[in-house]
Amino acid sequence: MVEGNFRIVKPTLVLDEPRARRNLQRMASKAAAAGVHFRPHFKTFQAAVIGEWFRDGGISACTVSSLDMAEYFADHGWTDITVAFPVNLRELDLVNELAGRIELGLLVDTPAVLDVLENRLNHEVRVWVKIDAGYGRVGVWWEDHDSCRKIVAGIVGSRRLQFAGLLTHSGHSYHATDIAAIQEIHVETTARLQGVRQDLAAAGFPDCLVSIGDTPTCSVVDDFSGSDEIRPGNFIFNDLMMESLGVCRDVDIAVAVACPVVGLYPRRKQLVVHGGAVHFGKEFLPGSDGAPVYGYLTTASPDSLGRLDRQAVLVSLSQEHGVIQVPASYLDQVAVGDLVHVLPIHSCLTANLYDSYLTLDGVRIPRR
Amino acid sequence: MVEGNFRIVKPTLVLDEPRARRNLQRMASKAAAAGVHFRPHFKTFQAAVIGEWFRDGGISACTVSSLDMAEYFADHGWTDITVAFPVNLRELDLVNELAGRIELGLLVDTPAVLDVLENRLNHEVRVWVKIDAGYGRVGVWWEDHDSCRKIVAGIVGSRRLQFAGLLTHSGHSYHATDIAAIQEIHVETTARLQGVRQDLAAAGFPDCLVSIGDTPTCSVVDDFSGSDEIRPGNFIFNDLMMESLGVCRDVDIAVAVACPVVGLYPRRKQLVVHGGAVHFGKEFLPGSDGAPVYGYLTTASPDSLGRLDRQAVLVSLSQEHGVIQVPASYLDQVAVGDLVHVLPIHSCLTANLYDSYLTLDGVRIPRR
Repeated sequence: MVEGNFRIVKPTLVLDEPRARRNLQRMASKAAAAGVHFRPHFKTFQAAVIGEWFRDGGISACTVSSLDMAEYFADHGWTDITVAFPVNLRELDLVNELAGRIELGLLVDTPAVLDVLENRLNHEVRVWVKIDAGYGRVGVWWEDHDSCRKIVAGIVGSRRLQFAGLLTHSGHSYHATDIAAIQEIHVETTARLQGVRQDLAAAGFPDCLVSIGDTPTCSVVDDFSGSDEIRPGNFIFNDLMMESLGVCRDVDIAVAVACPVVGLYPRRKQLVVHGGAVHFGKEFLPGSDGAPVYGYLTTASPDSLGRLDRQAVLVSLSQEHGVIQVPASYLDQVAVGDLVHVLPIHSCLTANLYDSYLTLDGVRIPRR
Repeated sequence: MVEGNFRIVKPTLVLDEPRARRNLQRMASKAAAAGVHFRPHFKTFQAAVIGEWFRDGGISACTVSSLDMAEYFADHGWTDITVAFPVNLRELDLVNELAGRIELGLLVDTPAVLDVLENRLNHEVRVWVKIDAGYGRVGVWWEDHDSCRKIVAGIVGSRRLQFAGLLTHSGHSYHATDIAAIQEIHVETTARLQGVRQDLAAAGFPDCLVSIGDTPTCSVVDDFSGSDEIRPGNFIFNDLMMESLGVCRDVDIAVAVACPVVGLYPRRKQLVVHGGAVHFGKEFLPGSDGAPVYGYLTTASPDSLGRLDRQAVLVSLSQEHGVIQVPASYLDQVAVGDLVHVLPIHSCLTANLYDSYLTLDGVRIPRR
């Protein structure tokens, strides 16, 4: 159990601060060595205190995925923020408010949006053209040079909008089957963005940065030639999804949910914890038998979140209950009232369900 | 769009109050007609204002799934609350605090827990013995009469604990394939609980209520003979899971997420909204092609959440993005900046992600 001189009474998001700081340091060093600008994505942790760890490391720019998140970090002293989400035209009041006090970066992939921005903004904003380099979510399709030229021309010809460059997120790296496949996605993404950049240069727009970023790629690639900026986020905590991809080790996972044991069921070799879908979310990975796995126990101690125990599996979640399948011998070592610690499948979504983190030192870190 | 004289700028949980009140009235009338005590589960909505709608209907007892939820409703005037979750021995301070001011019902399925309760409680509590009638989550297995007798004897022989009866939740009704299968589960559950009750009577414990409750069963069954109390919760909102089971109609679903459209992608016949996993959760149902469906659009108007449109499918969720597959013609009728309304798969989990509901009249109802 992680409890030192404090007591956990209900499902609690525990943060192994040394692991998170090590993850941060590793990624910052990699960016520095590669000579790319590091603009970490803060959506994973959404906590001003953790933002300070980045600032202590000399990082002064960040990425967020909503305007509300941008406002939160602006209120905590961040003055250079990219909102890596297509502009929501219903929130232009907040865009204006933020653009009046920070360097705000926005994403556009639709010509019609430019006119609205140009007419309604009271302050200058930086605009990135979002490129879909193969993921298939948002962005101008990488082969659609005409649309891209048109949008860039619109930005360059405007009064309020400054053209920053091309931005992409290769989220399909999360579905890769091995590290080689992740590296291939990176090579492909880079080549596709170079093609767009070259076309823009030929069209008279030579000043164009390239921003990429997803944790799988940024964890396994060292050479970011062709890109100017990386924006990974998940790496600060990692999770079982990253571990299953092979881009982190179990000892790099920096968050776990501490759950009180409320029942033992030897007939089924299961224990039940207070810790359900409202404490984990319902993201899953396929287990060794193909059935969904919602988490694995870890051998936490007061010093560390410990090692992954792949034999103790969170196999089912209802709103407040979690059902954990264990070897029969495990049930002799645990009692109702004990705590167990479960590593999450997707730390961004699990962390989103909590108001705060509890460090192994018993310190509460509030979340947005 | 649902917007009347108000404006929605970001993902918002919209509540069709007339539908919710109709769902409430229908279930309350059914319980009254069947002559069973109605102790609705409040975990679905977790809002004091909505609790008042029940109180206006003459309902004075409720069910919750955590002690924190019990505290919230106790603070809002509810004096008879069952916590339908096994006792968490780490929260006995809160149990004591609550037991000192309300009629508190707890669930026990483990003899060892009784001793701790008896030694540490300062006030009387009602104790239900949780029975596993086939669901396989928590509870004394229904065939294990010995354990059940032992627990009841422990309760009856204690100073602080009052024996209330047997309580079960047949959550496997959520996985039934049709209404006949749900009815079969109900018949089986009832018969199994009668067996336990008869065994207890033979052992000298004749005073034993039976409490059951899950929305699928309570929606399709009218005859609750053998049970004294029902505890459904989800019925107040319903959702696509209930609709797919056939236990409600689309026009009985009382919540939807209003999402701003941020991009149109005709090449893929998709639109992208601000509305992601942090606004829906990741519960899904299989679509007609077997691929996961995270929600369907609905044709909302200022008066109503409208009708389900099964051709407009929320096919993918990332943290803040939702990708909606639509017929090509749909893309001609929608623009970036519009609102669309998505019915959730599992309303309890979706509602848990919001601080408030917005009614069609523009009234904010805060959640716990």
